[in-house]
Amino acid sequence: MLVCSKCGGEYPERFRLRCDCGGTLMVMRETPGSLSDALTEYLDMRRYLGLLPLSSGYPEPVPSITPVSELDVEGTTAIFKLEYLQPSGSFKDRGTWVTVAKLVEEGITEVVLDSSGNAALSLAVFARRAGITAHLFVPAHASPGKLSLLGRLGAVLHFVEGDRMAVHERAVEFAERSGLTYVSHWLNPYFIEGTKTVAFEAYEQSGVPDYVLAPTGSGTLFLGLWKGFSELRSMGEIDRLPKLIAVQASGYESLCGRSSLRSYLAEGIAISEPPRLEEMRRALAETKGSCVSVGDPEIGRALKWLWERGFMVEPTSATVLAALWKLMESDGIERGSKLLLPLTGSGLKTVEGI
Amino acid sequence: MLVCSKCGGEYPERFRLRCDCGGTLMVMRETPGSLSDALTEYLDMRRYLGLLPLSSGYPEPVPSITPVSELDVEGTTAIFKLEYLQPSGSFKDRGTWVTVAKLVEEGITEVVLDSSGNAALSLAVFARRAGITAHLFVPAHASPGKLSLLGRLGAVLHFVEGDRMAVHERAVEFAERSGLTYVSHWLNPYFIEGTKTVAFEAYEQSGVPDYVLAPTGSGTLFLGLWKGFSELRSMGEIDRLPKLIAVQASGYESLCGRSSLRSYLAEGIAISEPPRLEEMRRALAETKGSCVSVGDPEIGRALKWLWERGFMVEPTSATVLAALWKLMESDGIERGSKLLLPLTGSGLKTVEGI
Repeated sequence: MLVCSKCGGEYPERFRLRCDCGGTLMVMRETPGSLSDALTEYLDMRRYLGLLPLSSGYPEPVPSITPVSELDVEGTTAIFKLEYLQPSGSFKDRGTWVTVAKLVEEGITEVVLDSSGNAALSLAVFARRAGITAHLFVPAHASPGKLSLLGRLGAVLHFVEGDRMAVHERAVEFAERSGLTYVSHWLNPYFIEGTKTVAFEAYEQSGVPDYVLAPTGSGTLFLGLWKGFSELRSMGEIDRLPKLIAVQASGYESLCGRSSLRSYLAEGIAISEPPRLEEMRRALAETKGSCVSVGDPEIGRALKWLWERGFMVEPTSATVLAALWKLMESDGIERGSKLLLPLTGSGLKTVEGI
Repeated sequence: MLVCSKCGGEYPERFRLRCDCGGTLMVMRETPGSLSDALTEYLDMRRYLGLLPLSSGYPEPVPSITPVSELDVEGTTAIFKLEYLQPSGSFKDRGTWVTVAKLVEEGITEVVLDSSGNAALSLAVFARRAGITAHLFVPAHASPGKLSLLGRLGAVLHFVEGDRMAVHERAVEFAERSGLTYVSHWLNPYFIEGTKTVAFEAYEQSGVPDYVLAPTGSGTLFLGLWKGFSELRSMGEIDRLPKLIAVQASGYESLCGRSSLRSYLAEGIAISEPPRLEEMRRALAETKGSCVSVGDPEIGRALKWLWERGFMVEPTSATVLAALWKLMESDGIERGSKLLLPLTGSGLKTVEGI
């Protein structure tokens, strides 16, 4: 069932973005008695099919179980999870995969999304093979390399002059006018069902951490991690939730106080007004977590550090390490803590003139 | 133990590239009684630690268990294995990972390699974190994007004017003069120990195929697949080897007859004189396999087909699909056959101006 996070309204599990009251929705299901009961034998994301709201079939390719890699960072045990190794190069594939499965289930064959970043790339990877035409609304000035990727994957591109907000408005207008489904991952409850599997995997690979640091813009990963660990607690696998640290980009904070200087590097989380803000606040309070804002100088240093250790990630992924350094300086995290840091996006897309 | 494929000479399991007779070496060990006995609980390549010649420790990050994705191609069941989702963007990480583990075991801290492609990128990803300085000899005219990747990963670049052969000679000279270890993956027996795990995974994910189509230049993947399936047979998991199809690039054939027109697209297998040629010939004969050569027009068509199905691969990866189409036209493969096609390298590196 879908449940409204604002008024508690309930809806059947169909594809739907909002409650009639305007609130955002989450999938709510009874969890199995234990994780091991729910696991399948698959060696990919289908391992968690028993915990996903899918009733028949799934799209291809199936996202990976991504490796974790442990490093000592300033006296903490930092567990990096390599989400950038998913088929489209970002963690978003987990959410897109569940979403596309749901769209196929409902016979939806044409959808609309506004993005020229990882969300668009992820949708383009899964949609066409599933028989879905993806209309992607992109800024006319987006990088030619990114647009070429989207085109080669078979997406239909619509170019919009203007800022990010103009692109969004044109996409929504187009969807309404043409009667097509708008698949905002910011709102879509099935997207979070996919991202929650990061928590399941990390738990199986390295147990429950004391802290989880997630790049947080729209909150699709942050809330997925909260939901995944919450479900592990419901199943009796863990008895406490890790503290969630929302890592935000300078100038685009929604949970921390807003800085005046805008980050240019952390483009994946440059989202000032996320529609799921209230849900994120609740997750922070429930886990006694906190918000940390980071700017480009420290993101740049963190990015260099990660590449030198073999993690070819994009700048947004480096925000979590920058935040960890910042927290260690201010005694926000105890030495000896165990931390989970998802590395969200591939840096191969960010190399010029390769 | 290391065994020479030419004279049968035996050596202890140290890092070594050739037999005293000049022949190439393979690791030979007794296989466990069954695959399930040997498997570990890890959800990454360490799953197969029990079948690898490692005695202590391993480098980080650990390569993934890559997903497989099944498609009907001209009446066959084509199982694509997404090796391009490894940490450095290619299957080579499997071989590099075992190699670097071995180098660390032996206390080797400085190595030399000539490549500006996937092998170099893979070595750069694993070496620095393992405490190894990688001297990479690269053509002075290699793409600035690729060189920037290698630099950011912490490799030491040596630029050489001249053709690929000049680069190779300078690397060998430098290694000899400075007493450093030259780590040619073409010769290195530990590299094949890593690539053999593709066979183990594919077998666990989708059983034994009738045919395996592998891009084949130096033969490190081809021979790894042969060795992996051979070990599965030794363990009694399978009773026959799949037929191995060596897919080669037009103008660079070593197993098929040499074409006059040279492929520009299949740069990953543009290797005219692989040192393991005799071993490859034996694997072809033993499995009743064959060689297929493909050229750029069909590689281009196959690449387009793969991208439209969500596989963001580089052109060399598309050779296997081009070969499958060619074999279906000439009745070289029966309809209804089950085929394994590893997709070897990421296409994100090949996008201009992203």
